[in-house]
Amino acid sequence: MNLPRRARIVEVGPRDGLQNEKGAVPTAVKLELIERLAAAGLPAVEATAFVSPKWIPQMADHTEVLERIRRRPGVSYPVLTPNLKGFEAARAAGATEVAIFGAATEAFSRKNINCSISESLERFRPVVENALKEKIKVRGYVSCVLGCPYEGEVKAHKVAEVAGALYDMGCYEVSLGDTIGVGTPAKIQAMIEACAGRVPVGKLAGHYHDTYGQALANIYASMQLGVATFDTSVAGLGGCPYAKGASGNVATEDVVYMLHGLGIETGIDLDKVVDIGVWISSVLKREPGSKAGRAIAAKRALPA
Amino acid sequence: MNLPRRARIVEVGPRDGLQNEKGAVPTAVKLELIERLAAAGLPAVEATAFVSPKWIPQMADHTEVLERIRRRPGVSYPVLTPNLKGFEAARAAGATEVAIFGAATEAFSRKNINCSISESLERFRPVVENALKEKIKVRGYVSCVLGCPYEGEVKAHKVAEVAGALYDMGCYEVSLGDTIGVGTPAKIQAMIEACAGRVPVGKLAGHYHDTYGQALANIYASMQLGVATFDTSVAGLGGCPYAKGASGNVATEDVVYMLHGLGIETGIDLDKVVDIGVWISSVLKREPGSKAGRAIAAKRALPA
Repeated sequence: MNLPRRARIVEVGPRDGLQNEKGAVPTAVKLELIERLAAAGLPAVEATAFVSPKWIPQMADHTEVLERIRRRPGVSYPVLTPNLKGFEAARAAGATEVAIFGAATEAFSRKNINCSISESLERFRPVVENALKEKIKVRGYVSCVLGCPYEGEVKAHKVAEVAGALYDMGCYEVSLGDTIGVGTPAKIQAMIEACAGRVPVGKLAGHYHDTYGQALANIYASMQLGVATFDTSVAGLGGCPYAKGASGNVATEDVVYMLHGLGIETGIDLDKVVDIGVWISSVLKREPGSKAGRAIAAKRALPA
Repeated sequence: MNLPRRARIVEVGPRDGLQNEKGAVPTAVKLELIERLAAAGLPAVEATAFVSPKWIPQMADHTEVLERIRRRPGVSYPVLTPNLKGFEAARAAGATEVAIFGAATEAFSRKNINCSISESLERFRPVVENALKEKIKVRGYVSCVLGCPYEGEVKAHKVAEVAGALYDMGCYEVSLGDTIGVGTPAKIQAMIEACAGRVPVGKLAGHYHDTYGQALANIYASMQLGVATFDTSVAGLGGCPYAKGASGNVATEDVVYMLHGLGIETGIDLDKVVDIGVWISSVLKREPGSKAGRAIAAKRALPA
């Protein structure tokens, strides 16, 4: 089994996680979260989204967040930019990496960004063109790669089409989102194989939600096909917006535990990530949503 | 990737799960739990343990439980029997399958069953001999196959020795327990490969705790080597006795969700298992410890 020797973890807790919180989290807390994650060795920390505060009030402080981060050399702080207006604001606030987000189903595209898939691609094109002119990197997301809350099962060739379009447009990487977490290893592999016909496998990332507890098995299966980049959220921040009480993003701690157990380098200090997960969960008044995080914290609490 | 076409799930919630509950669960609840699990298609439901109530008061009603189960044809109801005395009591109560439990480390053997590994094997021998004479099947357990709460990392050849001794003695199957849930896929595979030198791989079962969130990835990796039997616990009943607040047994719902997603037959009705998980968790006044169970229950609660 040829697993990668090194994997790259893109931490999405401060954006994908906090975006799904009911109340807005104070800007100072967001900044502390982002800076601590970068200090723990995360090579990329998705910081915020330049979307309308009317739609996502949790990200209304995007300019302040991006401007105030004390950036660490070598760490990337991508921000979501759904359109040219968002991109211009992100650029003005100092973005060096942005992300655009498409969907693999028409229904999700309409509900999430209020346009068809082909309209969304036309909307993204000037964002990518302008970004590349300014040497700003662009990451592409595809949502609903295994299932859609409105359309059910999703065909792998539909995912591959959107992933291919984003890559052809100039995205340096395309992150495949199992937005509702319904995937299992063989379906994940079939979807990746379809996408690998359009995008080099080393340019694909897995963004798997742990709603049905499948994310780690799916990450393991993805690595067996050569995928080596995964999006995760400290303490599993975020939850599932489509089923109250269910889990969302896979927890960074669980993924890093597995990777290190497999001898795969990440550059991440797991103990520090556990600390961050315990801290942010206490700020949000909940239990950390990471099993590895809870186990490591519980073990520390034992008498010597 | 050659995954099995069919997998066998051994439900251990009523024993391994409830044994780790603080208070004793009423006998009537245990009986309802066992009977509902069998009715949901579980082919084996570990029912109780014939151990001293001084050590494990939660299982003090073992005779009543085993005698009163309304047994379904084709379903097995194994019970734990640590020694000849326990075996005689189990036999008298109508056991048709018993289980003996050894450990891969001396320290765990001493703490758990108060004797060395070799003494434990001598103690098990007459249990197996008597059982086989009465046509009672015997299942073997090995604890701490990846890590020990007292000794740390465990060598694969130590696990293989104990597994081989149990198999040679007459156990029809040997269940490999990652008691503290520290295993990750490559280490699990190395341990299985070592055991497969002593026990045919089709006679090995995986009993993986989900303490660090790794159990499903470990089950997937085990199936890639031909293991097709796994021990699971409805709603993840049990918790981790070595780290308060951490998870224990992998949840039946999560495992069945993965297997069915992979097209592997189990004969289990997942919706019924979700119902049972929600019910027993409400009896025990807690959230179900299964992500798939919570997601399916949450989805049902959505407006149509």
